Amino acid sequence: MSLVLGVDPGSRKTGFGVVDTSQRKPIYVTSGVIKLPVEASLATRLNVLFESLVTVISEYQPNEVAIEDIFMNKNAQSALKLGHARGAIMVAAGQCQLPVFEYEARKVKQLVAGSGNADKFSVAHMVQRQLNLPSAPKEDAADALAVALCHIHLSGGVAALSGAGKFARGRLRM
Amino acid sequence: MSLVLGVDPGSRKTGFGVVDTSQRKPIYVTSGVIKLPVEASLATRLNVLFESLVTVISEYQPNEVAIEDIFMNKNAQSALKLGHARGAIMVAAGQCQLPVFEYEARKVKQLVAGSGNADKFSVAHMVQRQLNLPSAPKEDAADALAVALCHIHLSGGVAALSGAGKFARGRLRM
Repeated sequence: MSLVLGVDPGSRKTGFGVVDTSQRKPIYVTSGVIKLPVEASLATRLNVLFESLVTVISEYQPNEVAIEDIFMNKNAQSALKLGHARGAIMVAAGQCQLPVFEYEARKVKQLVAGSGNADKFSVAHMVQRQLNLPSAPKEDAADALAVALCHIHLSGGVAALSGAGKFARGRLRM
Repeated sequence: MSLVLGVDPGSRKTGFGVVDTSQRKPIYVTSGVIKLPVEASLATRLNVLFESLVTVISEYQPNEVAIEDIFMNKNAQSALKLGHARGAIMVAAGQCQLPVFEYEARKVKQLVAGSGNADKFSVAHMVQRQLNLPSAPKEDAADALAVALCHIHLSGGVAALSGAGKFARGRLRM
């Protein structure tokens, strides 16, 4: 089994999604959102993020991590906050000996939803279709699954990403 | 013995400095610069930073970490890069169960060198004087020692920060 962990980093909540690439079609394994305690210090929030991600990795044992890159039109304050989260995520992946692949949000949307300007609803809808899910995943989880699908597509992990395939429903956690 | 680890985060190199606060005057223990491999991937660089800092913490066993905050006039790209480094540093401190204190660069300069606009040379010179060092520490190490001194001053860790005190020369490593 070959699994890709997609991560959509955020300073308040980080989406994650695991997709199995060992079959002809990508198969949904799990997804969820790591919510950070808003009232805690920055260091505490980042350690919660790090530890939550290490827990996900320990449980599902993915082989690779795909992470969304930011829009470059963010302001400095937003970029700094997102940088903090991305730093914690990359350390979590690295400490678990997992290679990290980065994809620009625009590229992810283009590949998954057909347009670099696709809105979140469209991305979630296409993720639902491509993974043959009974309903659209939560916003951050959908973005995380989208970046995993983008990585699978670009790394040739599965034959194709469109159409209905074998479907294995995983647990929705966190 | 009560030790403060000061950290000056950077996307290419991160300065660190350890100061002993258990005497009447702050005592220099060690300082150095963690240089990140520029040709490596971002994830690799951040994990080198994380692991190097964990090594420093394991060796010197500080009780608290003081980290410099950024100038808010940085552009988004610079802020993102610095955020990555700060995220890795905060996770290193947190995983070693150390509390993290943040200080704006302006505040550090004000307290250590008498002016929020002090240049790096002035900061290094005042760090040298306050820690009774035979020469000025390297730029990034000096900034790290400065943030440690700032924390000690504001948290009342030692009676005073000016004048000559007992001097214990540590090793310069990394």
